[in-house]
Amino acid sequence: MKKGIAYYQIGETFDHFLLIKSATKGVASNGKPFLSFMLKDKTGEIDAKLWEASNEDEHVFQQGELVKVSGEVGQFRNKPQLKIHSIRPSQKTDGVFVSDFIEKAPVEKGDLMERITEAIFEMKNANLQRITRQFVKQYQDDLLTYPAAVRNHHEYVSGLAHHIVSMLRLAKELVGLYPELNKDLLYAGIILHDLGKLRELSNASSPSYTIEGKLIGHIPLMVEEIRVIANELQIEGEEVTVLQHMILSHHGKAEWGSPKPPLVREAEVLHYIDMLDARLNMMNRALSKVNPGDFTDKMYSLEQRSFYKPLFEEK
Amino acid sequence: MKKGIAYYQIGETFDHFLLIKSATKGVASNGKPFLSFMLKDKTGEIDAKLWEASNEDEHVFQQGELVKVSGEVGQFRNKPQLKIHSIRPSQKTDGVFVSDFIEKAPVEKGDLMERITEAIFEMKNANLQRITRQFVKQYQDDLLTYPAAVRNHHEYVSGLAHHIVSMLRLAKELVGLYPELNKDLLYAGIILHDLGKLRELSNASSPSYTIEGKLIGHIPLMVEEIRVIANELQIEGEEVTVLQHMILSHHGKAEWGSPKPPLVREAEVLHYIDMLDARLNMMNRALSKVNPGDFTDKMYSLEQRSFYKPLFEEK
Amino acid sequence: MKKGIAYYQIGETFDHFLLIKSATKGVASNGKPFLSFMLKDKTGEIDAKLWEASNEDEHVFQQGELVKVSGEVGQFRNKPQLKIHSIRPSQKTDGVFVSDFIEKAPVEKGDLMERITEAIFEMKNANLQRITRQFVKQYQDDLLTYPAAVRNHHEYVSGLAHHIVSMLRLAKELVGLYPELNKDLLYAGIILHDLGKLRELSNASSPSYTIEGKLIGHIPLMVEEIRVIANELQIEGEEVTVLQHMILSHHGKAEWGSPKPPLVREAEVLHYIDMLDARLNMMNRALSKVNPGDFTDKMYSLEQRSFYKPLFEEK
Amino acid sequence: MKKGIAYYQIGETFDHFLLIKSATKGVASNGKPFLSFMLKDKTGEIDAKLWEASNEDEHVFQQGELVKVSGEVGQFRNKPQLKIHSIRPSQKTDGVFVSDFIEKAPVEKGDLMERITEAIFEMKNANLQRITRQFVKQYQDDLLTYPAAVRNHHEYVSGLAHHIVSMLRLAKELVGLYPELNKDLLYAGIILHDLGKLRELSNASSPSYTIEGKLIGHIPLMVEEIRVIANELQIEGEEVTVLQHMILSHHGKAEWGSPKPPLVREAEVLHYIDMLDARLNMMNRALSKVNPGDFTDKMYSLEQRSFYKPLFEEK
Amino acid sequence: MKKGIAYYQIGETFDHFLLIKSATKGVASNGKPFLSFMLKDKTGEIDAKLWEASNEDEHVFQQGELVKVSGEVGQFRNKPQLKIHSIRPSQKTDGVFVSDFIEKAPVEKGDLMERITEAIFEMKNANLQRITRQFVKQYQDDLLTYPAAVRNHHEYVSGLAHHIVSMLRLAKELVGLYPELNKDLLYAGIILHDLGKLRELSNASSPSYTIEGKLIGHIPLMVEEIRVIANELQIEGEEVTVLQHMILSHHGKAEWGSPKPPLVREAEVLHYIDMLDARLNMMNRALSKVNPGDFTDKMYSLEQRSFYKPLFEEK
Amino acid sequence: MKKGIAYYQIGETFDHFLLIKSATKGVASNGKPFLSFMLKDKTGEIDAKLWEASNEDEHVFQQGELVKVSGEVGQFRNKPQLKIHSIRPSQKTDGVFVSDFIEKAPVEKGDLMERITEAIFEMKNANLQRITRQFVKQYQDDLLTYPAAVRNHHEYVSGLAHHIVSMLRLAKELVGLYPELNKDLLYAGIILHDLGKLRELSNASSPSYTIEGKLIGHIPLMVEEIRVIANELQIEGEEVTVLQHMILSHHGKAEWGSPKPPLVREAEVLHYIDMLDARLNMMNRALSKVNPGDFTDKMYSLEQRSFYKPLFEEK
Repeated sequence: MKKGIAYYQIGETFDHFLLIKSATKGVASNGKPFLSFMLKDKTGEIDAKLWEASNEDEHVFQQGELVKVSGEVGQFRNKPQLKIHSIRPSQKTDGVFVSDFIEKAPVEKGDLMERITEAIFEMKNANLQRITRQFVKQYQDDLLTYPAAVRNHHEYVSGLAHHIVSMLRLAKELVGLYPELNKDLLYAGIILHDLGKLRELSNASSPSYTIEGKLIGHIPLMVEEIRVIANELQIEGEEVTVLQHMILSHHGKAEWGSPKPPLVREAEVLHYIDMLDARLNMMNRALSKVNPGDFTDKMYSLEQRSFYKPLFEEK
Repeated sequence: MKKGIAYYQIGETFDHFLLIKSATKGVASNGKPFLSFMLKDKTGEIDAKLWEASNEDEHVFQQGELVKVSGEVGQFRNKPQLKIHSIRPSQKTDGVFVSDFIEKAPVEKGDLMERITEAIFEMKNANLQRITRQFVKQYQDDLLTYPAAVRNHHEYVSGLAHHIVSMLRLAKELVGLYPELNKDLLYAGIILHDLGKLRELSNASSPSYTIEGKLIGHIPLMVEEIRVIANELQIEGEEVTVLQHMILSHHGKAEWGSPKPPLVREAEVLHYIDMLDARLNMMNRALSKVNPGDFTDKMYSLEQRSFYKPLFEEK
Repeated sequence: MKKGIAYYQIGETFDHFLLIKSATKGVASNGKPFLSFMLKDKTGEIDAKLWEASNEDEHVFQQGELVKVSGEVGQFRNKPQLKIHSIRPSQKTDGVFVSDFIEKAPVEKGDLMERITEAIFEMKNANLQRITRQFVKQYQDDLLTYPAAVRNHHEYVSGLAHHIVSMLRLAKELVGLYPELNKDLLYAGIILHDLGKLRELSNASSPSYTIEGKLIGHIPLMVEEIRVIANELQIEGEEVTVLQHMILSHHGKAEWGSPKPPLVREAEVLHYIDMLDARLNMMNRALSKVNPGDFTDKMYSLEQRSFYKPLFEEK
Repeated sequence: MKKGIAYYQIGETFDHFLLIKSATKGVASNGKPFLSFMLKDKTGEIDAKLWEASNEDEHVFQQGELVKVSGEVGQFRNKPQLKIHSIRPSQKTDGVFVSDFIEKAPVEKGDLMERITEAIFEMKNANLQRITRQFVKQYQDDLLTYPAAVRNHHEYVSGLAHHIVSMLRLAKELVGLYPELNKDLLYAGIILHDLGKLRELSNASSPSYTIEGKLIGHIPLMVEEIRVIANELQIEGEEVTVLQHMILSHHGKAEWGSPKPPLVREAEVLHYIDMLDARLNMMNRALSKVNPGDFTDKMYSLEQRSFYKPLFEEK
Repeated sequence: MKKGIAYYQIGETFDHFLLIKSATKGVASNGKPFLSFMLKDKTGEIDAKLWEASNEDEHVFQQGELVKVSGEVGQFRNKPQLKIHSIRPSQKTDGVFVSDFIEKAPVEKGDLMERITEAIFEMKNANLQRITRQFVKQYQDDLLTYPAAVRNHHEYVSGLAHHIVSMLRLAKELVGLYPELNKDLLYAGIILHDLGKLRELSNASSPSYTIEGKLIGHIPLMVEEIRVIANELQIEGEEVTVLQHMILSHHGKAEWGSPKPPLVREAEVLHYIDMLDARLNMMNRALSKVNPGDFTDKMYSLEQRSFYKPLFEEK
Repeated sequence: MKKGIAYYQIGETFDHFLLIKSATKGVASNGKPFLSFMLKDKTGEIDAKLWEASNEDEHVFQQGELVKVSGEVGQFRNKPQLKIHSIRPSQKTDGVFVSDFIEKAPVEKGDLMERITEAIFEMKNANLQRITRQFVKQYQDDLLTYPAAVRNHHEYVSGLAHHIVSMLRLAKELVGLYPELNKDLLYAGIILHDLGKLRELSNASSPSYTIEGKLIGHIPLMVEEIRVIANELQIEGEEVTVLQHMILSHHGKAEWGSPKPPLVREAEVLHYIDMLDARLNMMNRALSKVNPGDFTDKMYSLEQRSFYKPLFEEK
């Protein structure tokens, strides 16, 4: 099979299927219209230009369309850009499917769900367990399809569940190493910490921010939801407040969106696990695309750093 | 009548009643026990020392006790300190009452309630009006007795309601000057903005932070409450989200406890009205205690500034 | 009458008069020259391109010229751009005038002057009154035509006077609500606070920074002017120093250009009134251009925020 | 056995052995000399005062002396203070030893050494392995006795080795969960990251900063040492530079002492493991001293936060 | 002759004359009054306590009095403190004079004046020269006696002139090394840069801040003065504005009190010369009091650093 | 001779030789290829476009080639851009040489070396002298050709040595003015402070960052080198540590790359001399290109300031 678009070098010729992520019409400086695309497959995306586009082109090549493209990979402002020689919509006979062009978690939904259920099953504190179970039940579909974020880390189908499961595994080891940790609290915090994103973002496949996402944000939305669900389940007790605190403080600092810093041990650990898993997800994916001896692109969510892959690493 | 303790100068002799705000036992460097008091009346408070205190003294002179004190106003580390010559508990025949020694708002509870009711009555948006009315009904007693804060501004009995009413008057004028403003939204925001403090603080008379106050804080607590009450009243519609946003953003910046900055015009105005009224309350009270030509003490909540009272101001 | 340029949507056809705010020649990537315009009317401005411009075009279509333009409103880098189909200079018979295309305050100069005079008349402190009157007399023409700023808020003809009058109205209400405030000091501070801009900026219609504006800035320039005028009027007394302090501190913080923070009550209030009126001016104008349910563009002077117009607002 | 000094409440009577950590002479305000002690056992330390101390007292009760003390636990400036009733030096017949009063790691030196050796043995990259082994060999004695820091975390005998071993366990799990990680690099980084402290600090038992500790600091000192040892072992190759980078960047940010931020994946992970283990060490020890429902003291190295122990935690 | 008070070690006996810089009455914890002094000579100052002071003591030992003191140098809160055994006022027959106990510049007033006059004489730009000469003429007495600051650097009699002259010498060398520099502008900037302190501070010998010092500050005061004097001398031309800019910007940053940063080459150099001379003055005086191998106390104006005197420095 | 490219105004015609600093191929919006150049001579550089470039053009006009260009100086995004009318490679008969198009220090290598040798010769402390001499000997060639930085200041051939020599001259004067300074330490610090750049940068003529430059940086690299060389020379003593500290701290602050701030007097002075010489180098060169009454471009390394050249300066 062909390698993914992320692995093409400047100067190479491309001739394969891609998904149109966005399409915009422009007018070139010679007065002729052109189409500006963002094209993608599972491995990444690339800018592309179709010069001297016709009206028909504009109607045919729209967002969500799967297309066969041939062209040359050039460079524009230090980023790769595909100059399109020919382009056509895919046909049934091509045997390609949109779902093959969308990145998703490397673990199946069923496995992800199993792991989360397992963790809930292990809990001994009934209050924490019931609240957590209720959430997972209520939001199961979205929980298994949403990305963990619009961009940056785990920004793919099932990314949120993948992130949760990865954090649960890490938490399990930590609880082994530091027996003082309250496993139930940590597990509940991990499973619920980002569920507010299901209300902050509009949908799983091409998420944008909702009005309540923009005006309230996923953290206070989730604090509110925990109270509503606890009321429904008629649960009282400090577990509710402490669990709300876990969510509220998990970004670590006021400047990062947490009006309270972690004031409970497991909240501090939740913050660190969240950071560590998100950062490893970003670094691993970026480094997988560079050769030993090279640096990655600057990574926005990692303080604009470029990471180096040492020469003594295997490719 | 005697002038209040705040108006005594170094070197003056004091001989009057005061309320014990706190009492701590210490051991002096000659090995003898002493009692360290914070004594107060309506105008302010003063440190005081009772040297060579007996065991009986320790049991008699406790927090909340009203005492007759005579002594000399001295100075310790640049702050006034009362050296107690004699002290005795007040007696019925003295005709003094604890409530006369506690600062309260300069407006009566009844008047404050009337003004708030009036503002709610003026609202035209039914959703905003119903939510606001429900809160006022549910929390009426506390709303009329709580201070607006533990310290800094309106930190006296009924301070919260006084602050609200003062902001409502300001808002009324602003709505007149800038007709684009949505009066209902602004009024609702003002009345509700700090009600979360009724859960953040333990009680009205000598408030301390509750566990949920410390772990969640009054802003997210109030965002949550609005949702719970809207659910109870079966109110849906953007008013709920926008009202939650008003509360969430009213501190203005993430560093000051608002995870979202004001993103609605009335939210920005609410933030400014809140600041302006709080700051005038603090400045007016501090300046009332200094003479023209002098500076106030450094004021913690006003960025440690000392304010100057010009010579051309009347005393 | 036609709607203003600010209200056109992408895709609409434009065919009306506009004023050339700036014109620059460029060379397109096909080697042909083009003209890049900023065109404006009272409601706003738009980028526009005239492709394949002739030498004559370059000489005819210059800054300050009123032109009839027809074209299509497109988009370039997320901002509207007008693609010019035809353009011609306006003629006498068109009956259009440059002054109709320049934004100005919604209040007449005469009314603005009357309000300012009224405020000065109300003052009781002779020193403050005489200094303020002298400034208004000396700078009357510029005071009534200058904008309050090059961009951001009240950036239109008579914007400075409009801002002053709006602040005076707000101050009048505040003095009513908080009788401790010194009205004379506040009025004088409001009227004079930005007069240094008459020296900081080159002229009223298309202002740029003067050398002394760049090297000294309007705040120290005005502090200096108050001393010079006080000397001329042979006024001595603390009013001069306190008034200088009002100006010096009105930006609130060293980082914002005030080497001293407000240390007098009225200086603190002046800072807040200035902020509140400027911010309402910016928000009101931006929100008037969006529909309920939409956000404004990011606003530079409001910390890059986009403001939301709730669905329950009338259009 | 008696409970440790850290567990005494205000008002309790103390009558047991303690170690003098520091002793200072003072003059009380009645002109009489007194001795001010910091006394300690394995669980913590307490201020203590011996009033009206004689010249002989001053000579007998010096730093390092083990004493039998009886007295009452009082409070001074919100911290416990022991008022000494009687004090005498310990005698042979008391059967107490200084080493019993000094906190040390909860794991034996032999076990710590075994774990470190095991980790080195697991490495496959010969360059990294040889450098790490050489350091451990060269510094073995100090490595097994030094604290990890003068205060804050792992500030006890063998604290440095305890911290290393704890991090190695965590790293082992991480390598299992994220197979992309280079185990050798991570292990080498963990073992060496703080060895510069052996030159930064004067000794293991009561460490103070050396001149080169103050002027250079442990991070650049260790970067330098790696080069010196690599030269001695005649090792060349990028491992040396990357290992130096691991040490250089492990504080994460310039403001925290790392002139380069982590630019290699394992360096980022080292920073997080270091933070996580240090923070858990501090939180666990502080929380072990408070009851459910209480907050710890403010913790300097945890951004002045007090941590809460939920009511549903077992004591 | 006796060594100065700054050079006494803990434990030494003192028996010599000192000047009372301040005297405060206190009440000891045994109820007895005491006097708390700050005593000084040319080399430094020391806290001192006179226990059980009589009423007469209080009247005799006041600020400005020269006293013969004997006592022991002890320590209180890590600072030296003199415990007074005996104290008496000085008598004529003692042959000691207050002026011998006040630190002053190591250069005579006459020499300082000569150097400043010389620099003015060297100027070729008539406008800059006339303004500078006028200031020096008008303020000559104060200019030669004021300190450069209330504390920190050159905080002694004639400190301001000493600082100016030291900067002029440095400027002279810089002009030689970098011939592009405008010597006249630099000289004028140096001589005038801190003259605003003559209005900011109340007097030369024990300076405190004036009202205009607190409300306006020396920088805007001096900008204003330059304009007033330029008007008097009927000087017009950019020299006035640029010279005002030199003063305005010489603190370098808004946060440090300069509303404009240096925007003229000589203004940047003025800022650096000012910093360098002030810092060398502070470091040299602090290091002269410590032995090789030791650190100075933390220095407030040098970002709380302690400076090290290397062992290879001569004592 | 022709004036340099830096002195051309918009609209002027250029017809002379230039060196190709970089060349990139692009595709214009009409689909035709073009070449985008950065062309330079000793005075500066300019963007240039060659439209409709042939394949042959692409091969001929490469980096490092000297070309004869004629064209018109236009403007693109507020920066000058040369529109090329004709271009050809230089020929032997043109008598132009690459070295004439590369900026270098205004002082000859021989003179620079002499000055440095002289300074070393003046040193009296044998340890400091031997280390310094050894470095100069070992790195002589690179030391005399490297720039002081990739951009900003002294970014030309021999720039590093030029900067060192300029700082040595300044230091010599300072030592005269402040005799407390240790000349040997200051000289050694100046000569060595940036030698780590010889390892941080790849080469002298078109330097880029090396891997160890990126991962370690010139400051820790030089700290390490001093230790290695001191070991080789078998030098022990505090001079080595203090010299390492001089290098480590010379950027002044952690945020600027110095993990320790200057803690030795000469380290503080080194920091200031370094700043002052670098800033004068940048300002002088930028101001030499503008006319009196104008501002320079914004200068990145001078906090984005534009500097003003007063009207009273000679051109």
